[in-house]
Amino acid sequence: MKRPHVIVLGGGFAGIECCKALSSADVDITIIDRQNHHLFQPLLYQVASAGLAAPEIAHPIRSIFSDQDNVRVVMDEVRIIDPDARTVTTAEDQFQYDYLAIGLGVKTGYFGNDEWAEHAGGLKTLNDATEIRREILLAFEKAEMEEDPQLRKKLMTTAIVGGGPTGVELAGAFAELARHVLKGDFRNIDTSEANVILVEAAPRLLTMYDEKLSEYTRKKLESLGIDVRTEERVTDVGEDFLQLESGRIEAANLIWAAGVQASPVTKQLGVELDPGGRLIVETDLSLPGHPNIFAMGDIAHCIDQAGVRVPGLCPAAMQMGKHVAKVIKDDLKRSKQKAKSNYDVRPQFRYFDKGSMATIGRSAAVASSMGLKFTGFIAWLMWLFIHLLFLVGFRNKIAVLLQWFYAYVRYRRGARIITGVPADGSATTP
Amino acid sequence: MKRPHVIVLGGGFAGIECCKALSSADVDITIIDRQNHHLFQPLLYQVASAGLAAPEIAHPIRSIFSDQDNVRVVMDEVRIIDPDARTVTTAEDQFQYDYLAIGLGVKTGYFGNDEWAEHAGGLKTLNDATEIRREILLAFEKAEMEEDPQLRKKLMTTAIVGGGPTGVELAGAFAELARHVLKGDFRNIDTSEANVILVEAAPRLLTMYDEKLSEYTRKKLESLGIDVRTEERVTDVGEDFLQLESGRIEAANLIWAAGVQASPVTKQLGVELDPGGRLIVETDLSLPGHPNIFAMGDIAHCIDQAGVRVPGLCPAAMQMGKHVAKVIKDDLKRSKQKAKSNYDVRPQFRYFDKGSMATIGRSAAVASSMGLKFTGFIAWLMWLFIHLLFLVGFRNKIAVLLQWFYAYVRYRRGARIITGVPADGSATTP
Repeated sequence: MKRPHVIVLGGGFAGIECCKALSSADVDITIIDRQNHHLFQPLLYQVASAGLAAPEIAHPIRSIFSDQDNVRVVMDEVRIIDPDARTVTTAEDQFQYDYLAIGLGVKTGYFGNDEWAEHAGGLKTLNDATEIRREILLAFEKAEMEEDPQLRKKLMTTAIVGGGPTGVELAGAFAELARHVLKGDFRNIDTSEANVILVEAAPRLLTMYDEKLSEYTRKKLESLGIDVRTEERVTDVGEDFLQLESGRIEAANLIWAAGVQASPVTKQLGVELDPGGRLIVETDLSLPGHPNIFAMGDIAHCIDQAGVRVPGLCPAAMQMGKHVAKVIKDDLKRSKQKAKSNYDVRPQFRYFDKGSMATIGRSAAVASSMGLKFTGFIAWLMWLFIHLLFLVGFRNKIAVLLQWFYAYVRYRRGARIITGVPADGSATTP
Repeated sequence: MKRPHVIVLGGGFAGIECCKALSSADVDITIIDRQNHHLFQPLLYQVASAGLAAPEIAHPIRSIFSDQDNVRVVMDEVRIIDPDARTVTTAEDQFQYDYLAIGLGVKTGYFGNDEWAEHAGGLKTLNDATEIRREILLAFEKAEMEEDPQLRKKLMTTAIVGGGPTGVELAGAFAELARHVLKGDFRNIDTSEANVILVEAAPRLLTMYDEKLSEYTRKKLESLGIDVRTEERVTDVGEDFLQLESGRIEAANLIWAAGVQASPVTKQLGVELDPGGRLIVETDLSLPGHPNIFAMGDIAHCIDQAGVRVPGLCPAAMQMGKHVAKVIKDDLKRSKQKAKSNYDVRPQFRYFDKGSMATIGRSAAVASSMGLKFTGFIAWLMWLFIHLLFLVGFRNKIAVLLQWFYAYVRYRRGARIITGVPADGSATTP
């Protein structure tokens, strides 16, 4: 008898964990991703800010599964999902599935103003990160040659929209890059005069945390010289400027970390989506009316068994990936026992909140776990330890540890290299 | 009194050494390069073959000179050199010089068949290297999906033109990538069936070495499964094929390591060039009739004081860079002593041949130094030690050592990451 075919879409945290948890299951698995690598997204901002090299936070998906015989890896782009025919069509091929686990994640979202993407890129892929690194380092080079003080100031200004973890971490990293890492490298400009402006629409940064942590974060960022502007809404974005309700910010470097939206492929499934385009799932993570299709990770809108809205964080994605594998294995066990399919007895997902954290700069971070709050050096050490622990691959752990150690003792960063040709917008945000 | 202005063109080995050797001189130095980084070219083939990340073999030029106050770094492209007006015009600016030291290096050359560049790229820049890495890894991905055995074979074939050190090192690295590193990663193809073909027009590989070393190299490459074809001339290059006099090679991956030519800027100087466009210099490294303009490194065609043709190798470039600095310092000393300018008393360049080496694969290399010849593991250890020693930056040394150690014990490579959008030819070979 042919073994059931499980197709996993996306090699992010959810997809990888789902495949791994099916390693001993009597199924054939095909994992499809348009990149050849799993990306450790929590450290993407360090590639953007020249602290790490791109390969250090990425791991080939094939290499993760080279010893797991029931997994086939396909590098291709998903185009069409047909729930009636049970097929997935990619750019190059078509696949038939028995179970489908969708973990395609989210991309940068502009709340309907997609034209802003051209001027303020997001930070979701390695190409995004190297593009930001290129732009920021080139802006300093141009500033060094510029004689007009107004233009020089604009070139040395970076504005980041979005005061969530990505925005906070980027702001801290850029401030340190300008004030410490690049210090002494230029002759005509003083890089410590570079401006970093962090814009957030809500009244405080890191809204998912306790107010005390938000306050600590703001103070810490301000002590790094960052101009933090809360309760400021962006009304327009153009070539080298952000229009706020209160005025205009002139900045050559604009980064958008304010919103995400699900891959448009979700629209083909005929099920209810949330405003971000996410698939609203049942508590077993299947789609309503499609017990053999699951959504997991950031692309899923899930209220878990306990009534908690599951956040878009790595640990949540990993737990959801494992849960989908468990549901599939349970189903197969029942079908072997000739038991009737009964989707009501499927295990229900319950999110286990281990906490969350964000780093602000050298030796400073905020963390919140099990009702406890941490700030400062202790939180930073926790952040370091946990991020190293979850990096895929022994080599990457050692390489990143080395870079961090070097950056800490020498205030240097190893990836201050301008590479690549400017990508046109369509190619970097597919 | 205004200090003499020395302009150094190019941040390669010659340019960097020239600036460093002028650190205590009473001059202002401007070093101009179109990249922001100095590149350790001898390890470029390891970036192309997924062994190292791009930032690990590059170092920001600004950072090299952050403590040397008399150096100003300009990231810009040289367009026009006017020896009469003593000016260098870049894309963005114009500079006046008293002394000019040209170390712009060479780029890939096709012996007049520039249209071949589109199908068979060279390996001279970081972008070239990441482009080759991308193409080779993508070809394996396509082969995994391909059902036609003929097409699959073509996708898994890499042909390298040129049996010098770059061609030999690339061939060895690709053979190991296919046979060992990628082993087990694919389900439909056996990567150990991948073909690597090395084409050389001369009767033997590594013609600059003793015949015994050439023979050893050929045997070692053949033991890695590489198809070595000497005395084979390329008559045409097209989409996925090489036309040789003896027949046609179908290969999806074509790399050109057969020739170089100097930057076209040399044509503006009105002095004699060799067939590769190099500037033919006097024995003090100045241009005939232009005692204040020097050429150094690969762009110089130099017969030294002892009548030896100086080879295009890093140690030679470094020695020439230092020599140019010495000539300038001597000139300045004489002019302070109110001595008459007498270019006949300038120090003459003499190349000190420390030897040369090429690595063939894991634990194998050839080296030739002071009349001694080395092969095998000893030569490989020498190669490792010397290359680490000359990498710029403590961090890079440690990072590269770590990657090599990991590759050696685990047969893995850390940079198997496909990034970037395909660059159009014009952007990668400026």
